[in-house]
Amino acid sequence: MDKDAQSLRVGIVGVGNIGNVHAASIFQGAVRGMTLTALCDVCPKKRDRLAKDYPGIPVFASHEEMLASGLTDTVIVATPHRLHPIIAADAFKAGQNVLTEKPVGVDCKSVRDLYSVAKHSGKAFGIMFNQRTDPLFIKARELVKSGRLGMPKRLVWIITNWYRTQSYYDSGSWRATWDGEGGGVLLNQAPHNIDLWQWIFGMPSRVRAFCYNGKYHNIPVEDDATVYAEYENGAGAVFITTTGEYPGTNRLEISGDRGKIVIEHGILSFYELSYPERDYCFYSSEHSAPEVTVQKFENKKPVLGHKQILTNFASHILHGEKLIAPGYEGIFELMISNAAYLSTWTDDWVELPFDEDLFASMLDRAAENTVSKVVKGETTSPQGYRDRWQVQW
Amino acid sequence: MDKDAQSLRVGIVGVGNIGNVHAASIFQGAVRGMTLTALCDVCPKKRDRLAKDYPGIPVFASHEEMLASGLTDTVIVATPHRLHPIIAADAFKAGQNVLTEKPVGVDCKSVRDLYSVAKHSGKAFGIMFNQRTDPLFIKARELVKSGRLGMPKRLVWIITNWYRTQSYYDSGSWRATWDGEGGGVLLNQAPHNIDLWQWIFGMPSRVRAFCYNGKYHNIPVEDDATVYAEYENGAGAVFITTTGEYPGTNRLEISGDRGKIVIEHGILSFYELSYPERDYCFYSSEHSAPEVTVQKFENKKPVLGHKQILTNFASHILHGEKLIAPGYEGIFELMISNAAYLSTWTDDWVELPFDEDLFASMLDRAAENTVSKVVKGETTSPQGYRDRWQVQW
Repeated sequence: MDKDAQSLRVGIVGVGNIGNVHAASIFQGAVRGMTLTALCDVCPKKRDRLAKDYPGIPVFASHEEMLASGLTDTVIVATPHRLHPIIAADAFKAGQNVLTEKPVGVDCKSVRDLYSVAKHSGKAFGIMFNQRTDPLFIKARELVKSGRLGMPKRLVWIITNWYRTQSYYDSGSWRATWDGEGGGVLLNQAPHNIDLWQWIFGMPSRVRAFCYNGKYHNIPVEDDATVYAEYENGAGAVFITTTGEYPGTNRLEISGDRGKIVIEHGILSFYELSYPERDYCFYSSEHSAPEVTVQKFENKKPVLGHKQILTNFASHILHGEKLIAPGYEGIFELMISNAAYLSTWTDDWVELPFDEDLFASMLDRAAENTVSKVVKGETTSPQGYRDRWQVQW
Repeated sequence: MDKDAQSLRVGIVGVGNIGNVHAASIFQGAVRGMTLTALCDVCPKKRDRLAKDYPGIPVFASHEEMLASGLTDTVIVATPHRLHPIIAADAFKAGQNVLTEKPVGVDCKSVRDLYSVAKHSGKAFGIMFNQRTDPLFIKARELVKSGRLGMPKRLVWIITNWYRTQSYYDSGSWRATWDGEGGGVLLNQAPHNIDLWQWIFGMPSRVRAFCYNGKYHNIPVEDDATVYAEYENGAGAVFITTTGEYPGTNRLEISGDRGKIVIEHGILSFYELSYPERDYCFYSSEHSAPEVTVQKFENKKPVLGHKQILTNFASHILHGEKLIAPGYEGIFELMISNAAYLSTWTDDWVELPFDEDLFASMLDRAAENTVSKVVKGETTSPQGYRDRWQVQW
């Protein structure tokens, strides 16, 4: 059989902003190895629109019907976050490969349940961490993982360029609610950055966080958060994010005992030391420091992002290519953001791994206490969305 | 009387690195309105050197003798930090004007005692916050205080370019000890930055801090600290400093609802919004943001720093010029750094103002528990010092 001729038969569950972006990419033939064969959305209005926009593609009202149709072997889950693990698990049980949108879920407990189903199925499992395809983050990871940066000391990420107006939050009843999205900026905008943090710098051992609900918007979840984290080796991390500042900043700094990486304005600057600082410190005179050379890296090519993750997922299944973003890695960033909530709620440190049952019950309580949102009307606007998901500098 | 012909008769107590810098400036006639008339140091070796370096200037072994000599009307205190309030108070009691090195003391309690003596004396009182003379910080303060930046939202200062080798710490027995300096990087290097933080952005209402003793050096005090702070109006601040990273960063970011200030590499960038974000947020469509214009400010002139503070202090006394750094403002940065220690020691939030008696007793306990440092020999090295006190970008 000619493997190149093979194509996954892909169904998408939840065709809102991002689901529609993926649907369009695949439908237009822009994703090698994927063919759009089914769509599914619970909203009748959306289904009508999908039928027009994607002629010839069957549209289902429930994921169960879609899974039972036999039209797909691969499912993309792009529903509100809280449903990701439920629908993904159903898809695995139906023998499908699953690519889920980020975050993999809203609480680690339900994600672990999903993971055991996924493992049992033996099918491919990916997650849409499209910012992992950005060459600057790939470069930063290489410098850290190869040891060229030396012993990691600190990561500071000011990622405050996720500006949102109230109108954005009013555009969907599930948006920015504890029961819909399971959180605010940490759960919906920052998962990319938190994933990159752990992907490049590793997982911290404990977290102390300061999250503020509805600080800048009429929403019950946090739109401003600062996460402080400690590592086993003594390294530290500070992560600052909000949807309430404009113009925001996207500046990642990572220091190690062989230098420093700074990424800002689309340029990675690597300050490399001639000699490891940890040795230098103890064998040098008072007023001196190791020599530094500065190297700049800039990416001029377009970042394929979502499409690259889709293509890679297909290529993984069809040709054994290594996954850029395995679904099983989705839990790491979620552990950090869950821990950040838990730390805020308990006003204390949270050691990782934390009590995931406790977190799930506290999240449920937060959801129960949420007053229903009044929204101006459900809208989707793929164009604005397209502009948004690229890394913004 | 011709006021321009007048000159303060200045004695300096503690003529180590920085004391020697001031002595030389005044002795060489570089400070209008100041004449060097006395020096004082407890170290016999230093006194021998001072007698040679400053011919004709009487050198005393104790500040009491110097104050009793009648040779001075103005005293500069440049001893180890813990002695600042004691010697300054003695000087005020002897009817002297006092300019103290930073920090004004090591604990707020003893500083308040000093303040009542100072007020009672009615004499002039200044503090050596020389970085307040930097035009970029002056500009940032103007933008904030004038309201041009709008409602303050956040300050983030990564000030990790205070790199020190172990040799620096080994150069003086009082250095980096709880009983000598009363702390580490927050007490000795960062007071300038913490003062600028409060000078530009105001005082926070509570603090949660993470200080690490001897993380990068063989010292009993902190050489790495992250301070998280909250403000009454909901604003937040993150302050990150260390002497253990190289090359470090000096990047100050301040955001408000009318824009953002970033100072890095000696350039202030002001991103000014066409419309206040706080109004815009609630009256605009989903995918939009206010217009931004960017203005850059760079200072090409030399920053006079110490000399400007000295000249200003003389001019204040002689001609009523407004003080750049009143001694009474010294306590603000100290409140923040004391609160940072207290927060670390209690592993909890510290509300400002905090229990200053409790802090003083905890600091005493830390000092008692300190093992005496083994030093390679007391050294002073004014040249290295001179290079160090300018704002480093």
